[in-house]
Amino acid sequence: MNTKEKILITSTHLFNEQGIDVITIRHIAKEMGISHSNIQYYFKNADDIIATIYNNHIKELDELPVFKNLTLDALKSSIVLVMEHIYKYRFIYIHFVVIARRLPSVKKEYAKRFAIRQQQFMDLFAYYREEGIMRKDIPIPVWESLINNIYIIGDFWISANELNTMLKGRKAVDYYGRLIEQLFYPYLTELGKSQITLSK
Amino acid sequence: MNTKEKILITSTHLFNEQGIDVITIRHIAKEMGISHSNIQYYFKNADDIIATIYNNHIKELDELPVFKNLTLDALKSSIVLVMEHIYKYRFIYIHFVVIARRLPSVKKEYAKRFAIRQQQFMDLFAYYREEGIMRKDIPIPVWESLINNIYIIGDFWISANELNTMLKGRKAVDYYGRLIEQLFYPYLTELGKSQITLSK
Repeated sequence: MNTKEKILITSTHLFNEQGIDVITIRHIAKEMGISHSNIQYYFKNADDIIATIYNNHIKELDELPVFKNLTLDALKSSIVLVMEHIYKYRFIYIHFVVIARRLPSVKKEYAKRFAIRQQQFMDLFAYYREEGIMRKDIPIPVWESLINNIYIIGDFWISANELNTMLKGRKAVDYYGRLIEQLFYPYLTELGKSQITLSK
Repeated sequence: MNTKEKILITSTHLFNEQGIDVITIRHIAKEMGISHSNIQYYFKNADDIIATIYNNHIKELDELPVFKNLTLDALKSSIVLVMEHIYKYRFIYIHFVVIARRLPSVKKEYAKRFAIRQQQFMDLFAYYREEGIMRKDIPIPVWESLINNIYIIGDFWISANELNTMLKGRKAVDYYGRLIEQLFYPYLTELGKSQITLSK
């Protein structure tokens, strides 16, 4: 692992543990036992590190096998996979609005991805309706709202967990993964219901 | 209006506009044209102001006529009413995790209210099932998840709006109120559906 990668890993760890308000380049340098200027050889400042971590996170998400296999079980696994990555970079989600306000590149990238994912979800739900797995009697605006609601939960379950539930790692992903999974339940037909096992 | 109230109103305004990382007692004093020590006569520091605003907000929410009238239309109006209050104090929700980490009293109060509201929602949905307005064929854990999901959306629609949609005031409340309203749609029976008009 090179120094640049080590800086990103140490920074992610410190931001996750202590938040982005507290941690500066000096803290990161101290934690790594290197000099302040050694970090600044690679990154202008802490915001530059945050922007790089965000971009790497997005690249990792895009490489996940999501929207590839279309069964309900695959959808459930995909959600868990995405949530594991979100947990890994949880500081981004806790400080998402502050980061997006400070870094216009993050905000732009977010909006771009949101529009693409929204269309992918609409196509997926259309496919499930065609296959008789999801209900045909629900108006299109309700499906659009569902996608928006999935997005709010997907982006802020980390914050909800910090605020109240305080679960760690695997337990957090399982708990909130189940909330998203069960969000789909009333949209399923009898056939759809027969194809899933509700998590305990 | 007394000085203490003026401090709270000015602080809410500044926190909403510029976030809690930037605004100090000095900014609030400058905006009001009074001295720093005049504010400190009433509040120890900015965190003390935030805690007071949070408590006042909770008191206002508790005074709203929510869970009083049980029709679906009343539920919809209640949601909008709560969301208007959330919008008024939107800085709390944008910085909710950071505030809860810094102020244990906020965290404690949040957990207490969450448990009460959760039970109220469970009772409300049980009533709707009895009345034939909501479906009887949905397992209890799915209802529990629904309540948790409503809470995540209720607490973080402000952040989602800041991140992406960027609507102001009335428009923000209408847009996200519709998302919550439509979340209920697939749980409704034919009778339930006949009792609501979906917002456009």
